[in-house]
Amino acid sequence: MTDRFATRAGEVELGFDPADHTDAGVHFIGEIHTPWSVGDCPRNVRAARESGKGAEIVLKPDFVPGLEGLEVGQAVILIYWMYAARRDLIRQSPKHVEETRGTFALRSPVRPNPLAMSAVRITGIDLETGRVEIDAIDCFDGTPLVDIKPWVETIDVPPVSC
Amino acid sequence: MTDRFATRAGEVELGFDPADHTDAGVHFIGEIHTPWSVGDCPRNVRAARESGKGAEIVLKPDFVPGLEGLEVGQAVILIYWMYAARRDLIRQSPKHVEETRGTFALRSPVRPNPLAMSAVRITGIDLETGRVEIDAIDCFDGTPLVDIKPWVETIDVPPVSC
Repeated sequence: MTDRFATRAGEVELGFDPADHTDAGVHFIGEIHTPWSVGDCPRNVRAARESGKGAEIVLKPDFVPGLEGLEVGQAVILIYWMYAARRDLIRQSPKHVEETRGTFALRSPVRPNPLAMSAVRITGIDLETGRVEIDAIDCFDGTPLVDIKPWVETIDVPPVSC
Repeated sequence: MTDRFATRAGEVELGFDPADHTDAGVHFIGEIHTPWSVGDCPRNVRAARESGKGAEIVLKPDFVPGLEGLEVGQAVILIYWMYAARRDLIRQSPKHVEETRGTFALRSPVRPNPLAMSAVRITGIDLETGRVEIDAIDCFDGTPLVDIKPWVETIDVPPVSC
């Protein structure tokens, strides 16, 4: 165990690892190539974007036909699997947050299902090889990709008020 | 098999079911109670919102402390598991789309990993029971919930241009 997995004061563990009791299975469709590894990964996609460094998705061959209809310049949501994050903290204290908070009130990768998502723009696409260049992303090189969805304002932006 | 699972002209099957070859496991954290079932489910969250009908999340007891820090009026992203959708179409022709398109260019629930996501607003929250009321959602009653994340404009809205 490294320090990354130490439980800090005020944090609450579930008492079980959700990875040991699963209800459905995820099939990785490809992976994300990024400039980032442990220690230098930006905290979120905005910080990644500010670095000026892009990234690239490489789909597994079976899934390449699923890209048809996507275009350079289009905004998409990527859903990726934060494989290095523990899954058993239900209250936590990320480094940049003062107090302890519930996991569902945070964008921390530490969560029962370590799915992360960011809205990005396609900067290049090759429908033959299944390579998609994107403007930025905030995950380690080699992070497994779970889904690509077109970003749709009426689904992905909440109403101003209810 | 019902007609819902018939492959239409121009659609392309993967040749395997991603559910049979999984790389990681999802643990359902609760379920979503909605007014919708097969036949009357809105096509997307905007249509659900226009119906004027809200919905409610009920978390499993272990996960209730994870809500702390969320508030009424706050926007969150829900990630839910479209359990009734097939996973093996990589090109498809949804009813409302004229031509066949790649799965990743569509928001269809039919995809290798049947994760859906919508940005919604919290209209009520009970930190004791783990019940969260939301303004609207576009899934069947009883749909499993996979994650709740605070909606963050700098992560969830793409840059205007690259």
